[in-house]
Amino acid sequence: MHAITIPEPGGPEALVWDEVPDPVPGEGEVLVEVVASAVNRADVLQRQGFYNPPPGASPYPGLECSGRIAALGPGVSGWAVGDEVCALLAGGGYAEKVAVPAGQLLPVPEGVDLVRTAALPEVACTVWSNVFMISHLRPGETLLVHGGSSGIGTMAIQLAKAVGATVAVTAGSKEKLERCAELGADILINYREQDFVAEIEQATDGAGADVILDNMGAKYLDRNVRSLAVNGRLAIIGMQGGVKAELNIGLLLGKRAAISATSLRARPLGEKASIVAAVREHVWPLLAAGHVRPVVDRGLPMSEAGAAHRVVEESGHVGKVLLVVR
Amino acid sequence: MHAITIPEPGGPEALVWDEVPDPVPGEGEVLVEVVASAVNRADVLQRQGFYNPPPGASPYPGLECSGRIAALGPGVSGWAVGDEVCALLAGGGYAEKVAVPAGQLLPVPEGVDLVRTAALPEVACTVWSNVFMISHLRPGETLLVHGGSSGIGTMAIQLAKAVGATVAVTAGSKEKLERCAELGADILINYREQDFVAEIEQATDGAGADVILDNMGAKYLDRNVRSLAVNGRLAIIGMQGGVKAELNIGLLLGKRAAISATSLRARPLGEKASIVAAVREHVWPLLAAGHVRPVVDRGLPMSEAGAAHRVVEESGHVGKVLLVVR
Repeated sequence: MHAITIPEPGGPEALVWDEVPDPVPGEGEVLVEVVASAVNRADVLQRQGFYNPPPGASPYPGLECSGRIAALGPGVSGWAVGDEVCALLAGGGYAEKVAVPAGQLLPVPEGVDLVRTAALPEVACTVWSNVFMISHLRPGETLLVHGGSSGIGTMAIQLAKAVGATVAVTAGSKEKLERCAELGADILINYREQDFVAEIEQATDGAGADVILDNMGAKYLDRNVRSLAVNGRLAIIGMQGGVKAELNIGLLLGKRAAISATSLRARPLGEKASIVAAVREHVWPLLAAGHVRPVVDRGLPMSEAGAAHRVVEESGHVGKVLLVVR
Repeated sequence: MHAITIPEPGGPEALVWDEVPDPVPGEGEVLVEVVASAVNRADVLQRQGFYNPPPGASPYPGLECSGRIAALGPGVSGWAVGDEVCALLAGGGYAEKVAVPAGQLLPVPEGVDLVRTAALPEVACTVWSNVFMISHLRPGETLLVHGGSSGIGTMAIQLAKAVGATVAVTAGSKEKLERCAELGADILINYREQDFVAEIEQATDGAGADVILDNMGAKYLDRNVRSLAVNGRLAIIGMQGGVKAELNIGLLLGKRAAISATSLRARPLGEKASIVAAVREHVWPLLAAGHVRPVVDRGLPMSEAGAAHRVVEESGHVGKVLLVVR
């Protein structure tokens, strides 16, 4: 088969579409013939040499895919060859075939085509596990989503609105904020022109955000804590703004607030399967009902993954950038 | 009645046993004739002028008491004049009488005398809410308790052992660590002589602590995060080691860990009542069965509250220091 390989870490040109051996599904795994994958920030870090795949994972990038089951490994039940699926991957989605634990498979949701389904696994699992399973966003509460027009952001807006929360977003342009508003965002903050702490304070009458979904890490830590409501929960899922920052514990304690920091990729199989099962239970019906939809910026041929990385690195996109096989 | 007043903030001598008006129980409150109260760190801060009572709370110190119900305010049911009780207070425990919301009352547990019952409300509610309701300590997990010989620490050790956890403690002397061991602590760390990060790593075969109950705040933040296990939870309930410190978000994210910071006193009535109800359901049966007991260092007459504060400030005690009326 072909896969995107990284002979040497570097810029987008480091991604090489090359002939590689077919993966073999192990115990409890299925082989998926990939129809599409999607670009995640972690793929960019992996390409740059900053994010090695976890032990046992495919060496090729790609944390999600859609496709058709081509073969079942030993001990797999509930799935059949030919089933149209999507999957959360520990790697290897940028390829014509990938082996994946059966617990990380999801059916194609009703009403979503197979290619666009590749936009769903990472964002649905990341948002559901962080905003709902860890941070317990409740109806009537306010969620602040940083990077509201990203793949994660566009899913977070839709899921939070679907459960009856108020949604605030930050983004870097008027156009991106308009797209967030179309998806249901209530409070629109241009981080280039506005101070999100002041905007959240004003929009919530001083109450603050009950949950914050953050991809910036250090750069926003203090401002995020200042923006939290009493009993607020800050969920950090990225560190695009750095790794270390001063924490005002007194402020956190005064608000009886909490900070979590997670990533999906390194979780053990059992935890991934639990998250995937919860997503199937809670998110898939919202997709089937049309309340939530994948937001896709564009699709590029998988062999041109480097061009897709350039799009994501320039942050000109809204939603997901797909990589389509052939 | 008499109460301990603080005419001017300052040292232990600032506490003055004085004649003051009787409190009047409002809607949903009962009047308790106090038999005993207990000293908490927050009382010391209040005496020093650093911790004002929350709005609506009694101006006198004292966050817990035991005693007898002397009168019922309007709208109280389920309690009767003469009932022996203990109570979680927002203040006013250092007095002959105190008015308290009925949701913060607990019966005297079977097998515990009325005076010693005053040692229970704060530590039971603080430990249960943080270690179990927020941090979800589970059987087989490891809890690290800083200040294992404190009132909080002695309760945390016993409750964690009662649910089948392994317990590590830090304390400042061999004698205090021996007392912790008598209560069930498995891993004993003298913080004056040992590095708790290294000791926890060794004692857990590199796994780390699943839950840490911390009263030090800034001074221990980085070491606490380093001591956490994957999926670990750090519960900060005090800032005896300062308010601001650098947080390594990368380390937290690599462990998929969480930090919470709370205090009990400022919580709204509904939250306090929920915690008290959970303590009655989960902790009171353990007291009645003798699996958990109040640990009392000594009792002093309430009129000598200043002397009791000296004991607590010198940290020579193990468990709670009580203040007994008459």
